[in-house]
Amino acid sequence: MIIVMEDVSQHKDYMLDKLHQYGLEAHAVPDHEKLVISVCGEHVDRYANSISRMPGVLNVLLISTPYKLVSKQYKPDYSRIHINDLVFGDTAIPVVAGPCAVEGYTEFSEAAKIVKQSGAVMLRGGAFKPRTSPYSFQGLEIEGLKIMRKIADKLKMPIVTEITDQRKVEIVAEYADMLQIGARNMHNYVLLKEAAQSKKPILLKRGLAATIEEWLMAAEYIMLAGNDHLVLCERGIRTFETYTRNTLDLNAIPLIKQLSHLPVIVDPSHGTGDWRLVGAMAAASIAAGADGLMIEVHPAPEEAMSDGKQSLTPKSFYELMDKLKHIAFAIGRRIYSNG
Amino acid sequence: MIIVMEDVSQHKDYMLDKLHQYGLEAHAVPDHEKLVISVCGEHVDRYANSISRMPGVLNVLLISTPYKLVSKQYKPDYSRIHINDLVFGDTAIPVVAGPCAVEGYTEFSEAAKIVKQSGAVMLRGGAFKPRTSPYSFQGLEIEGLKIMRKIADKLKMPIVTEITDQRKVEIVAEYADMLQIGARNMHNYVLLKEAAQSKKPILLKRGLAATIEEWLMAAEYIMLAGNDHLVLCERGIRTFETYTRNTLDLNAIPLIKQLSHLPVIVDPSHGTGDWRLVGAMAAASIAAGADGLMIEVHPAPEEAMSDGKQSLTPKSFYELMDKLKHIAFAIGRRIYSNG
Amino acid sequence: MIIVMEDVSQHKDYMLDKLHQYGLEAHAVPDHEKLVISVCGEHVDRYANSISRMPGVLNVLLISTPYKLVSKQYKPDYSRIHINDLVFGDTAIPVVAGPCAVEGYTEFSEAAKIVKQSGAVMLRGGAFKPRTSPYSFQGLEIEGLKIMRKIADKLKMPIVTEITDQRKVEIVAEYADMLQIGARNMHNYVLLKEAAQSKKPILLKRGLAATIEEWLMAAEYIMLAGNDHLVLCERGIRTFETYTRNTLDLNAIPLIKQLSHLPVIVDPSHGTGDWRLVGAMAAASIAAGADGLMIEVHPAPEEAMSDGKQSLTPKSFYELMDKLKHIAFAIGRRIYSNG
Amino acid sequence: MIIVMEDVSQHKDYMLDKLHQYGLEAHAVPDHEKLVISVCGEHVDRYANSISRMPGVLNVLLISTPYKLVSKQYKPDYSRIHINDLVFGDTAIPVVAGPCAVEGYTEFSEAAKIVKQSGAVMLRGGAFKPRTSPYSFQGLEIEGLKIMRKIADKLKMPIVTEITDQRKVEIVAEYADMLQIGARNMHNYVLLKEAAQSKKPILLKRGLAATIEEWLMAAEYIMLAGNDHLVLCERGIRTFETYTRNTLDLNAIPLIKQLSHLPVIVDPSHGTGDWRLVGAMAAASIAAGADGLMIEVHPAPEEAMSDGKQSLTPKSFYELMDKLKHIAFAIGRRIYSNG
Repeated sequence: MIIVMEDVSQHKDYMLDKLHQYGLEAHAVPDHEKLVISVCGEHVDRYANSISRMPGVLNVLLISTPYKLVSKQYKPDYSRIHINDLVFGDTAIPVVAGPCAVEGYTEFSEAAKIVKQSGAVMLRGGAFKPRTSPYSFQGLEIEGLKIMRKIADKLKMPIVTEITDQRKVEIVAEYADMLQIGARNMHNYVLLKEAAQSKKPILLKRGLAATIEEWLMAAEYIMLAGNDHLVLCERGIRTFETYTRNTLDLNAIPLIKQLSHLPVIVDPSHGTGDWRLVGAMAAASIAAGADGLMIEVHPAPEEAMSDGKQSLTPKSFYELMDKLKHIAFAIGRRIYSNG
Repeated sequence: MIIVMEDVSQHKDYMLDKLHQYGLEAHAVPDHEKLVISVCGEHVDRYANSISRMPGVLNVLLISTPYKLVSKQYKPDYSRIHINDLVFGDTAIPVVAGPCAVEGYTEFSEAAKIVKQSGAVMLRGGAFKPRTSPYSFQGLEIEGLKIMRKIADKLKMPIVTEITDQRKVEIVAEYADMLQIGARNMHNYVLLKEAAQSKKPILLKRGLAATIEEWLMAAEYIMLAGNDHLVLCERGIRTFETYTRNTLDLNAIPLIKQLSHLPVIVDPSHGTGDWRLVGAMAAASIAAGADGLMIEVHPAPEEAMSDGKQSLTPKSFYELMDKLKHIAFAIGRRIYSNG
Repeated sequence: MIIVMEDVSQHKDYMLDKLHQYGLEAHAVPDHEKLVISVCGEHVDRYANSISRMPGVLNVLLISTPYKLVSKQYKPDYSRIHINDLVFGDTAIPVVAGPCAVEGYTEFSEAAKIVKQSGAVMLRGGAFKPRTSPYSFQGLEIEGLKIMRKIADKLKMPIVTEITDQRKVEIVAEYADMLQIGARNMHNYVLLKEAAQSKKPILLKRGLAATIEEWLMAAEYIMLAGNDHLVLCERGIRTFETYTRNTLDLNAIPLIKQLSHLPVIVDPSHGTGDWRLVGAMAAASIAAGADGLMIEVHPAPEEAMSDGKQSLTPKSFYELMDKLKHIAFAIGRRIYSNG
Repeated sequence: MIIVMEDVSQHKDYMLDKLHQYGLEAHAVPDHEKLVISVCGEHVDRYANSISRMPGVLNVLLISTPYKLVSKQYKPDYSRIHINDLVFGDTAIPVVAGPCAVEGYTEFSEAAKIVKQSGAVMLRGGAFKPRTSPYSFQGLEIEGLKIMRKIADKLKMPIVTEITDQRKVEIVAEYADMLQIGARNMHNYVLLKEAAQSKKPILLKRGLAATIEEWLMAAEYIMLAGNDHLVLCERGIRTFETYTRNTLDLNAIPLIKQLSHLPVIVDPSHGTGDWRLVGAMAAASIAAGADGLMIEVHPAPEEAMSDGKQSLTPKSFYELMDKLKHIAFAIGRRIYSNG
């Protein structure tokens, strides 16, 4: 159950006290000028009527799904998430692009200019890389953050980068415009809460083997920690198929649209692990209703320090952007453009 | 290795004799006016040079994949498969539609008219239904075939229906224009070969847990049995996700396009098991490059004898067809139309 | 619901007539001197009381699972399946062994003698091999059956072999003591019914991606066709893991024991695809409660025409049998022995 | 490649310098009185010969697997991991038991006494619980640690508990004898490194969808951070099967024994999620060669605050321990006992 009430401390105290008496568990989250209380417990719905008559209560919502704040039952209208001037969840669809890892100033600068020219409106790049092997390149860390920030400012594009360490949330938040929780950390609830508290917009990738429900529950952790600047990102799940690194699950897009008010974007680069499939799957994502794309582009993919196999060349990216514009138009949307 | 040669029995005998001497296994398949010999065995490629100089040899192709005849290495141009006037694999994209099971003359007739009005150009319907439970409706069988044929003739639309029993291939081939091998029978090699011998066009669905390679190997069985009228159909794979009945794997579309010359279509109805996702996934399929769609439509889904949950209403189907036209146009193709 | 009644045609006709009037679907199966009717339909349980008072009714069982005849609710005692003198489902645990494919008289004879000496009490061998690739060895077919029969008679061991073609059920049933439905055909319901009608004992392997429920539903097809000489065989499922060919799912053993009265055996050779894991998994199967094992043994695995990688050498098999005896003893059972 | 050398700083500096010149990446780990350097890079093996002749080099090992320090190629003998007096990896097999979460002093004390009486030699209990839902019980945290420590001291049993937060590694390490990395954090490389640095023995659970290789790579992170007190724990993987919460993958046991020198134990409680399967799978684990078990036992499972469905009652646990003794004996081992 969700209780929406005036954010008045006296009413809040009374309410929390009452809920405690009823044996219910309450989580209070300030939401702009209102107070939202997410309530769980046995037979919680029985109390709806009496709660609705308590002082300060604006609305009581019975929500049948295990996730509450992220559900469409709670917010029937789709959310729009702002990153500076950019919006995820609007008619216009932003494309985020850049290399997998930040490898140096020159390399990132070149990549950033290229993707901007082709129409990308936000930069991606990894400074802290969670790698399966301890022997793989782990990223330039703080140095990488600084490079990204400098170039982002120069090109006036916001930047998203992954956080992997809860103790570095603060420093990453200083440099980045949006914090990415990677697939491998989707179940890292400590990191989710820490990231949420930075108040920065969050990009929450789906875990390698996470069900849609678990993914939404991870999002609930973030909203419950008071951060509703949240965008979901489908990036492929683990299946028996071996020809692709992951199985990009586009079914997630219409499903999330049924279940949640949150925007959902797609990363076809990690999702397939094969640049030859990226274009088709990016196009399919837009057709399926995705609110954005995150695509790996590298000036020279064959020399990339990580994931070159899945990066587009500048030329392929340019051609893809053109195709995406037509598809977005076909479904009554458009690719977000800075110009 | 594939040897393409003149279809002259004397050359053929000589060649087969030689291959036998080399200890290689040869499968000869007539292909229009030529003879195609698919050759396997250890160090097969060593013999390419000497084979290429034997009498009647037009071409020798070294093929590195385990599937030979279905590979793009063998036929670099995409195949076009004709079903009467219809073509799969061309710029124009046919949409196949109809109810899951044929339930009676009136019901099927109504459904067929509805899908035709909305632009479907081929009918689907099950007369023999392979059901997980022996207690579920198993189809009207021969009676169902007759109903479909009658209505198909009336509306001048070709019809595809599933075969599940090798002994009934002949009778089904009498009534249907295309034979479907369902997901549950993709590994039923006896049925594959029997169906191939009917010389009817075949629609080969991907198995529930079949890798792309296994699917192409199943297609190889059919081509090796001398039938190259073959269309592949992605219909969802089994994963850990429980919110959808299957995980429709659209990655298969660009992958198949890389690996094979065969057309590939998509069945988003079985692929998702949920009518609310069908529209988005149909649109995504076209954007990803699918050569066709197969969609379940039922005049009254809530009363369907099987799979009502995944069937579109006539109205949803009509609206979807309109959307699909725009998407096909955006990628330089169009939805195949009879008019 | 299951109705157990006297097998008197007058009572049967009356009952079927009544069930039809109630709008219920009835499947009658003779079971020794009784008649068993499996009944489905909406609100079926409401009729239990009145049905129980109809003439000839011995018992009415309400069964909550989708599978009825194979459920423990129907038969609380575990079934014992006899193959000549052998029993599956008893305290003594039979071990079935032999090569993957029958390759010739001498080879099979040698393998058979070896496994007998080590304590195997039933032979396995493939005459019809369902292979992923049309280019792989497909078995000696009828010739293979004859070889197996001759050697089986000589060694006085019963034999199990796979059927893949419904038209060959009759001929295979002439030569084999037990018919195996392979993993690839578990969903081939036409074959299940045809095999059932042979009245031969059936070994039903679990499908590559079949849930426990689907596997039991496949077994229900066989029992509903009047054949209760049925043994289940776990042989590995398809998962994301790539170090093993399949993931042998031993959880299936205690689960089947909870849900069904049917014996369940394990095939660790196909289940793992790696001879180095066979011994440990065979031992684990016995400890988990399996009613039998089916193990591939080849006199010279490195020369096997199929699946040599997963076959034990005679020596490894001999050592394994010794280990298995100790484990069986530890859980109060024993390895079935002929001596 | 792994270089084993005398731990002399002058030799070390010379070696690291040389490796750098060769363009190779080197990770030095002190190992008792020796120095181990794990080396990666292109054509690394070419340098083996010249490296072997450098000062201080005791041994150079070429290792073909992506994991080096955890491989059997590096240490052909199985490792024994000591937790106080207890050893994992020896003939005697320790059983760890306790409730899922620590719920209070009385509850934990009662559970601990019960499992000790039945023969468990180490306690498990969760103070920090990573839960899919933010609304589920998250553990007693520090309070829980204190309770566990007190009771562990009283009963003279070591204790293992999960760490989920890198900032709490230090405090948990103060109270616990062994730190558990849970399945959800197996890919949390920051936590792996932090935990390793505590120098406490680590129990590394397999990730929900981690391949054997990824699991061993996670273990490599820990060993590379200088901690070789490491035990692996199989706890079920995610598959399509829905009758069990996870699919406990016992194939992992013989596989790990082929690939690594590290001990591997099994958690059949989380692995199946169903107490009715725990006994059979525990027995199977021992038969398959597991070096230990971790089992959930709760005095009153139906009242447990988390995972009651998978907890054994004291009586079931008592009976199981007896069964396990017999199975261990059958394979020439025994259940570790304090008495």
